[in-house]
Amino acid sequence: MAEQVNNKQIVLKDYVNGFPKESDMLLKASNTISLKLPHGSNGVLVKNLYLSCDPYMRTRMNKIDPGYVTSFTPGSPIIGYGVAKVLDSGHSNFKNGDFVWGITGWEEYSIINDPENLFKIEHTDVPLSYYTGILGMPGMTAYVGFYEICAPKKGEYVFVSAASGAVGQLVGQFAKLSGCYVVGSAGTQEKVDLLKNKFGFDEAFNYKEEKDLNAALKRYFPDGIDIYFENVGGAMLEAVLSNMRVNGRIAACGMISQYNDQGDGVHNLFHIVTKSLRMQGFIVFHHYHLYPKYLDMVIPLIKDGTISYIEDIAEGLESAPTALVGLFSGKNVGKQVVVVARE
Amino acid sequence: MAEQVNNKQIVLKDYVNGFPKESDMLLKASNTISLKLPHGSNGVLVKNLYLSCDPYMRTRMNKIDPGYVTSFTPGSPIIGYGVAKVLDSGHSNFKNGDFVWGITGWEEYSIINDPENLFKIEHTDVPLSYYTGILGMPGMTAYVGFYEICAPKKGEYVFVSAASGAVGQLVGQFAKLSGCYVVGSAGTQEKVDLLKNKFGFDEAFNYKEEKDLNAALKRYFPDGIDIYFENVGGAMLEAVLSNMRVNGRIAACGMISQYNDQGDGVHNLFHIVTKSLRMQGFIVFHHYHLYPKYLDMVIPLIKDGTISYIEDIAEGLESAPTALVGLFSGKNVGKQVVVVARE
Repeated sequence: MAEQVNNKQIVLKDYVNGFPKESDMLLKASNTISLKLPHGSNGVLVKNLYLSCDPYMRTRMNKIDPGYVTSFTPGSPIIGYGVAKVLDSGHSNFKNGDFVWGITGWEEYSIINDPENLFKIEHTDVPLSYYTGILGMPGMTAYVGFYEICAPKKGEYVFVSAASGAVGQLVGQFAKLSGCYVVGSAGTQEKVDLLKNKFGFDEAFNYKEEKDLNAALKRYFPDGIDIYFENVGGAMLEAVLSNMRVNGRIAACGMISQYNDQGDGVHNLFHIVTKSLRMQGFIVFHHYHLYPKYLDMVIPLIKDGTISYIEDIAEGLESAPTALVGLFSGKNVGKQVVVVARE
Repeated sequence: MAEQVNNKQIVLKDYVNGFPKESDMLLKASNTISLKLPHGSNGVLVKNLYLSCDPYMRTRMNKIDPGYVTSFTPGSPIIGYGVAKVLDSGHSNFKNGDFVWGITGWEEYSIINDPENLFKIEHTDVPLSYYTGILGMPGMTAYVGFYEICAPKKGEYVFVSAASGAVGQLVGQFAKLSGCYVVGSAGTQEKVDLLKNKFGFDEAFNYKEEKDLNAALKRYFPDGIDIYFENVGGAMLEAVLSNMRVNGRIAACGMISQYNDQGDGVHNLFHIVTKSLRMQGFIVFHHYHLYPKYLDMVIPLIKDGTISYIEDIAEGLESAPTALVGLFSGKNVGKQVVVVARE
């Protein structure tokens, strides 16, 4: 009989209404696990290293019909993207010592029964934590949403909301690489400074200090907006619609303002008709076949410093609930990562 | 000096707030016109036969910035699509006796200074009034919106709002020709009967008798909606978003509920993200290069009775204000046309 080790977990207590609180989650310290897979398993047993805090996870805290995502299971660990190290493998694609990224549990060790959905990490000469962000799902979200959905042209005017987040910081830099003019919005002066000084946005503003978002957008886009990378929804979307140009494109990547409550209605969708706008949602994992192409593009840009990337690191599994909850009040500066272990 | 004849006109008195009223327009009987073009004109002088009442005209009654459309000029005749006969031509594309359709004035005779934008009517073995509808702008709107924007596949579930109108009745029939299941909504029992019995919709319902649009759509689309042809906006759009299927498409053709006031907000745009929806506006005159292809398709279908088409005919120029205003309370059954003269 294999040795049992302690396996701390972060468990969702029950479905959540409104803004999530740390007390909606629980550190469960009593769980144990064997570090050998059960005989005959086709899965992998992994040690979790880095966990990703992503806004979409809020929807999994609701009791929802299966669809986009499934609900978390109250009493079971939170699940989400992470980077892990294979300790035991029953699957021919993986061997002990491999690093992988994909969906795992918020716990020290996980058994993953569908390892076909994991990505094996081939490039280990970049920080492994990057596979929760720029080299993982958020990076692919920025890439697919900007290049595939928005089809940018040189000289176009691009606006990014929630611009200092994991996805937004990349979209802004992709826009500059494409010869676009790009403005970002964020919720603190610190983030605004980062957008301009670190990520190379042409302009940035603190949406919390703008009484009139419509007027703010007119100030930064006197000729209107061609591309909007939508991360927030609600009042910001309404202001953007008023400032879109004919044949504009809106990549609907997320609507963080709408996750916790129904939020404000959008009253001016008529602009979609009058300006021939295209507003398109997308689910990034439908586009994962493009991942190798994306890596070929982005890894050299990371290595030569063309692309900057900022992470907000929370230390220890026990810090994960605070880190996740902080996303919804904008506490994180850059990609929110939780370090469970570094190797 | 050429003979002057009387030229009655329908004039917009002033910009309109809220629902338009007949009293916002005026029959001006005192105007006269020469039936010869001024010497050196490159335009055409036409006798107007049929005038088209279209929902988009409401927006031209506002004082608006140039863009989608320009404002009407208070004190001048309403302008809109119509069918006319050329009485005098200074342009090599047109000669006396030609029938044309395109933008003209709400008056008995008009001088059109940019005849390049007129379509010469080649097929005169169908009713000329059809060129205000099925063979004109609304027909092209249905064609472009359904085939180009929605890209229907056999077996898909299609919903059409304002379905008995000029555009909706065609979209429903195109959907059936494409092997789709199609449901329409309209505002009277008479229209609902038409949709089912005349236009071949699989089902139809009176939205005014449904307390809960979401429940109504769930009843008709237990498996959800793939394609929504959007003509109304507001509460209907919100209910539709809740019932769309993954990878659904919404052609945003018009939002008649939003033309007269700002209307209800839409609170559930998050479905665009979670279901990978594409919502796309379009301006039909950007697609007029497809008109010959459309005629090749639709004229045989009209002649052999495959496609049905219903007009609501108002007699005489003086009836035009009532006819136009009636669009916004749904008085018309089928395409609203005003007959100024029959030849």
